[in-house]
Amino acid sequence: MRLGRSLLLAFLTVGPAALAEEGMWLLNDFPSKEVGAKYGFAPTQAWLDKVRLGAIKLGMGCSASLVSKRGLVMTNHHCVRDCISDLSTPEHDYLEAGFVAASDAEERRCPKLEANQLVEITDVTDRVLGAAKGLEGAAYGQAIKQEMTRIEGACATSAALRCDVVTLFHGGKYHLYKYRRFQDVRLAAAPEFPMAAFGGYPDNFNFPRYGFDVAFVRVYDNGQPAVTPDALPWAKTPAKEGDLTFVAGSPGGTERVQTVEQLAYQRDVNLPRAMVRLSELRGTLLQFAQGNPDLWRTTRARIRTVENGLKGLTGRQAWLADPAAFERKRTEDTALRSAVKADPAKEAKYGQAWDAIARAVTAERRLSPRFQLEEQAQGFGSDFFDIARGLVRAAAERPKPSTERLREYTDARLPGLRQYLLRDVPISRPLERATLTVGLRRLRDTLGPDDPYVQTVMGKQSPEDLAREVVDGTHLDEAKVREALWEGGEAAIAASTDPMIGLARRADPGARAVRKSVEDEVESVLARNGELLHQAHVAVHGTSGYPDGTLTLRLSYGTITGWEEGGRKVPAMTFLSGLYARDTGKYPFAVAPSWLQARPKLEATMPFDMASTHDVIGGNSGSPMINRQGEVVGVIFDGNIPSLGGDYGYDAATNRAVTLHGRAILEGLEKVYGAGRLVKEIRGR
Amino acid sequence: MRLGRSLLLAFLTVGPAALAEEGMWLLNDFPSKEVGAKYGFAPTQAWLDKVRLGAIKLGMGCSASLVSKRGLVMTNHHCVRDCISDLSTPEHDYLEAGFVAASDAEERRCPKLEANQLVEITDVTDRVLGAAKGLEGAAYGQAIKQEMTRIEGACATSAALRCDVVTLFHGGKYHLYKYRRFQDVRLAAAPEFPMAAFGGYPDNFNFPRYGFDVAFVRVYDNGQPAVTPDALPWAKTPAKEGDLTFVAGSPGGTERVQTVEQLAYQRDVNLPRAMVRLSELRGTLLQFAQGNPDLWRTTRARIRTVENGLKGLTGRQAWLADPAAFERKRTEDTALRSAVKADPAKEAKYGQAWDAIARAVTAERRLSPRFQLEEQAQGFGSDFFDIARGLVRAAAERPKPSTERLREYTDARLPGLRQYLLRDVPISRPLERATLTVGLRRLRDTLGPDDPYVQTVMGKQSPEDLAREVVDGTHLDEAKVREALWEGGEAAIAASTDPMIGLARRADPGARAVRKSVEDEVESVLARNGELLHQAHVAVHGTSGYPDGTLTLRLSYGTITGWEEGGRKVPAMTFLSGLYARDTGKYPFAVAPSWLQARPKLEATMPFDMASTHDVIGGNSGSPMINRQGEVVGVIFDGNIPSLGGDYGYDAATNRAVTLHGRAILEGLEKVYGAGRLVKEIRGR
Repeated sequence: MRLGRSLLLAFLTVGPAALAEEGMWLLNDFPSKEVGAKYGFAPTQAWLDKVRLGAIKLGMGCSASLVSKRGLVMTNHHCVRDCISDLSTPEHDYLEAGFVAASDAEERRCPKLEANQLVEITDVTDRVLGAAKGLEGAAYGQAIKQEMTRIEGACATSAALRCDVVTLFHGGKYHLYKYRRFQDVRLAAAPEFPMAAFGGYPDNFNFPRYGFDVAFVRVYDNGQPAVTPDALPWAKTPAKEGDLTFVAGSPGGTERVQTVEQLAYQRDVNLPRAMVRLSELRGTLLQFAQGNPDLWRTTRARIRTVENGLKGLTGRQAWLADPAAFERKRTEDTALRSAVKADPAKEAKYGQAWDAIARAVTAERRLSPRFQLEEQAQGFGSDFFDIARGLVRAAAERPKPSTERLREYTDARLPGLRQYLLRDVPISRPLERATLTVGLRRLRDTLGPDDPYVQTVMGKQSPEDLAREVVDGTHLDEAKVREALWEGGEAAIAASTDPMIGLARRADPGARAVRKSVEDEVESVLARNGELLHQAHVAVHGTSGYPDGTLTLRLSYGTITGWEEGGRKVPAMTFLSGLYARDTGKYPFAVAPSWLQARPKLEATMPFDMASTHDVIGGNSGSPMINRQGEVVGVIFDGNIPSLGGDYGYDAATNRAVTLHGRAILEGLEKVYGAGRLVKEIRGR
Repeated sequence: MRLGRSLLLAFLTVGPAALAEEGMWLLNDFPSKEVGAKYGFAPTQAWLDKVRLGAIKLGMGCSASLVSKRGLVMTNHHCVRDCISDLSTPEHDYLEAGFVAASDAEERRCPKLEANQLVEITDVTDRVLGAAKGLEGAAYGQAIKQEMTRIEGACATSAALRCDVVTLFHGGKYHLYKYRRFQDVRLAAAPEFPMAAFGGYPDNFNFPRYGFDVAFVRVYDNGQPAVTPDALPWAKTPAKEGDLTFVAGSPGGTERVQTVEQLAYQRDVNLPRAMVRLSELRGTLLQFAQGNPDLWRTTRARIRTVENGLKGLTGRQAWLADPAAFERKRTEDTALRSAVKADPAKEAKYGQAWDAIARAVTAERRLSPRFQLEEQAQGFGSDFFDIARGLVRAAAERPKPSTERLREYTDARLPGLRQYLLRDVPISRPLERATLTVGLRRLRDTLGPDDPYVQTVMGKQSPEDLAREVVDGTHLDEAKVREALWEGGEAAIAASTDPMIGLARRADPGARAVRKSVEDEVESVLARNGELLHQAHVAVHGTSGYPDGTLTLRLSYGTITGWEEGGRKVPAMTFLSGLYARDTGKYPFAVAPSWLQARPKLEATMPFDMASTHDVIGGNSGSPMINRQGEVVGVIFDGNIPSLGGDYGYDAATNRAVTLHGRAILEGLEKVYGAGRLVKEIRGR
């Protein structure tokens, strides 16, 4: 109720700029004037450009920053957890023990990781919208997609560049983002997983907090540490409560202008369904790993991912389930609709959007169960299947002209896809059997045994039997098998007797069909009318807003401060002494031996984690927190529970980001992990 | 959408009687006139009394019927699954193999099962409401509770009687139900679990269907088969499509008159939370039992229970998540509120209900997470804990006057409780460790490690460690230990060093405190104002209605017929040939060897399962389906997916009960299971 009440107050003010510290701002359209008026510091475009070049986007949906001129990159531990897991063996378990490279030579390549630096932004709105002029429905979406693919293709002149046309304001603007690609990313230092994830599921999205969720990787060029003059300097003065700071990172897809129908679909259908799915998977995986150290080692990272997703979705759903919050969104929607109706010119332009969106949501309710099962859900929850599907589809798509392919198989995307599919990583067969069993079971549970797709994919086999057969029988763990299938194309795929390829072949036609329906009846309609909705929003509320998060670089501003929760004051910062007080000796509340040993060398009053009002969300993980001087003062790794509603709205009274303090980072590196080498480098000495 | 549309049409008609075949009618207030007008058959009170005496309520929330004068009772297999599981051993696995007693002597007592026959109904409304006259809030609820306890105590003059004051119309009426108690219930015949649950999770709540979900128990009196002259005769003519039939059983708690706030709480908060909880448990249990026949044997019944609950909750939530259905309920609520407001006399009497209910729901949103964790959720999911809590509470409650105890510890309830707590059943320690770990984990996940209750219950132990300690260390599996604790009362409980008793002692104060808050702020308010709401409903819509289901005996009427689903016609009946066509040889679609062997002896065209329009819901499981002559023609065992919204509403276009056909029952008994002895008895020969 607390959240809802203050949201209602927030709504009584007018216009986005009035909502204190709300906003995920574009770096080429930052509200410097407003920030200057409020805080006495107005970032210049030169300041913003420096921040843009110091920020790094990590391949798998995380943020990071360059912190030395020799390519050292800071991010969260949880952003490179897959890499650490992939590099671990029973003998060298870097998740359990942590990892510190004593020299460049000891740094280890992360097989799946890519890092991108945003070197240029170009507005291509006119070109993209021009290509779709006069079109509607599926044709509109198709034209947009093709033009985006053409622009990206022309930009990506070398494998060292990545070019994405980014959709902003739900299609109101299109920007071409040109990235410098770093495909050779090596792990330099990481704490123990139990310290990074200290507090586990119970503490996740909570504060006070004691996570040491940081890790360092280094980007390489031609086998040498990359030369990165754009690195952000480290702060000489540590951050303290009340400081104005900035967060540069790539928040994921928010949806802050939505109709009531869209929000109700999330609250009533989509989020509960996803929560139920992840909950079953969580129970399965925890029981799977229970009491078996080997299985625990290969599973704990996946468990953490599932638990994090589950708690995040739960918070989002709870936000929408709060009647006051939902009524605020309903009021916003109704007010926008009325304002449009009241003006014949606006009504003619935007009025159709509401009904069209309502129809698309109705279609989504009908199509999404099948779509999520057949096309999404990470390939029935199996890494092997995900690879098999990628190979099957690449073979089918590559002979087509780039503009007619599925989006993720266009020429611009092929190099990254190839790297992803041919990467050399260990896959645990026991874990694959467990997760694929769950995935296939869900398929049959939901669609029923009589469903033609279920019969095509599973025949009369049980989920367990089919999972065992295809996981035990596949050779896709051998890089040369995958390479032969990639190079061999359609003929090789058709001739393959690998049972996982066979499963992917059977699954593909149905999945493509439902994807097509969703693209035509849902996504195209929502894209076109979401654009109208946002244009209406801009037409009614003015142009000083920020676009929804799109996993691309943004800047948020805010202050380091606590909040009130049920009459109780939550502090702005935690200190080292609190970490030791919370130690129970048992996961997830066990302080690692390294920190117990280093305790005499550390000040008990050293700041540890901090809460701040920045408007961040998933995707911001690993974002640097920056002071007025453009210096790094910490690394964002989480938000609190109220921040989980960030997809839909922001409330300065309760919404908090959670950051690991810069001083704790350097002290930890030097005194706990013996990584003085990196500390010197970060300090520029 | 289909469901929602026809519901809207239904709403356009006026009054309950116009809603074809909706209704769970009292046997002393059946709409015989309306049924007679529509079908040409009006049940007389004598006919209704015969049906009442032939119906049986089973202790654990199921329905049944007397089908011979020697105490033979028919119900569903899933209603006695716990018993069959309890009687099974690794050598004699009756769930897997089925069970047929060749003589009375071979019938085996079900340790937990009690059967009740409703011998008398008395209206005690005036007495109960008189005792609470002029009171409000907590005092009102307390007075009602105490008067009910007094009435029950005066009625229950022997251990062979059970007396319950039943709350009807949400407190609009109170009836005293006097039951003949049968505490010696023995298993006579049951098919294999895979036949009873044929189709498993995917087919559950679906049709066409091939479940053979029937079982027979016998009630005993002084060690002899009870004399039961009230048994219902078996039909001479099998039921066929289009027949008018009746279903006598005890539907569970429906809530068909609710405010929008109550429904939104279910849709947005309570149902998703329960779905998530059961989903995690399902994943845990399936993985726990995977590949281990012994664990599968001790777990499969629990898995089926969890899966059934999960699918049922999912259907209920989906019903409320359908915008058309929810809007229909909103319209009903708004219309009732307006009708009350429009009449000053009504407004003075009932007008307060809406705001009071809204406040109670707000309190429920705040209190329910803790209440469900500490007081409900089946004692952290552990049978041992459930027993320990019962012993701890019985010791604390028994010294108090009966009227001041927690409801389930009143004098009238003590005999049943003692039997339950001292029953001799095997409890699987590995399963207990797994489920208690999940329960304790959920407690800490939800309330957080800093919560005082969590600290009291768990200290700094991990869920796994604590579960292992108390499950491995308890002696509550020994009947004499439990008996000593029951007899020894408070002193024995205080002195006990049993770790499970210790856990229950630590858990009790907090659980009692939150229960008190819920009783005072939620339950009392909802009881008092739910009564007003229903009185308002009666005042506006007339008195021809039926009260919400309350797990007490009701009669529904309807016809055997199919329905339309997405343009596809779903048939009214299935036939034996379809069972064999569905056989895959793999659980849950494996036809048992007994049915494969008997195939030549059976007619392929024999009716198997049937769909009908009866308004039934959970609790109706095991209800006899009866023809105009008062003869048994089948046993209800399920409803279809649309019927899962039955808590909130009924739609004759899609709502279907699922029944095992009487002919299939007798043919199966005789030709598949060699239980000709029972068939002769049922036929009265």
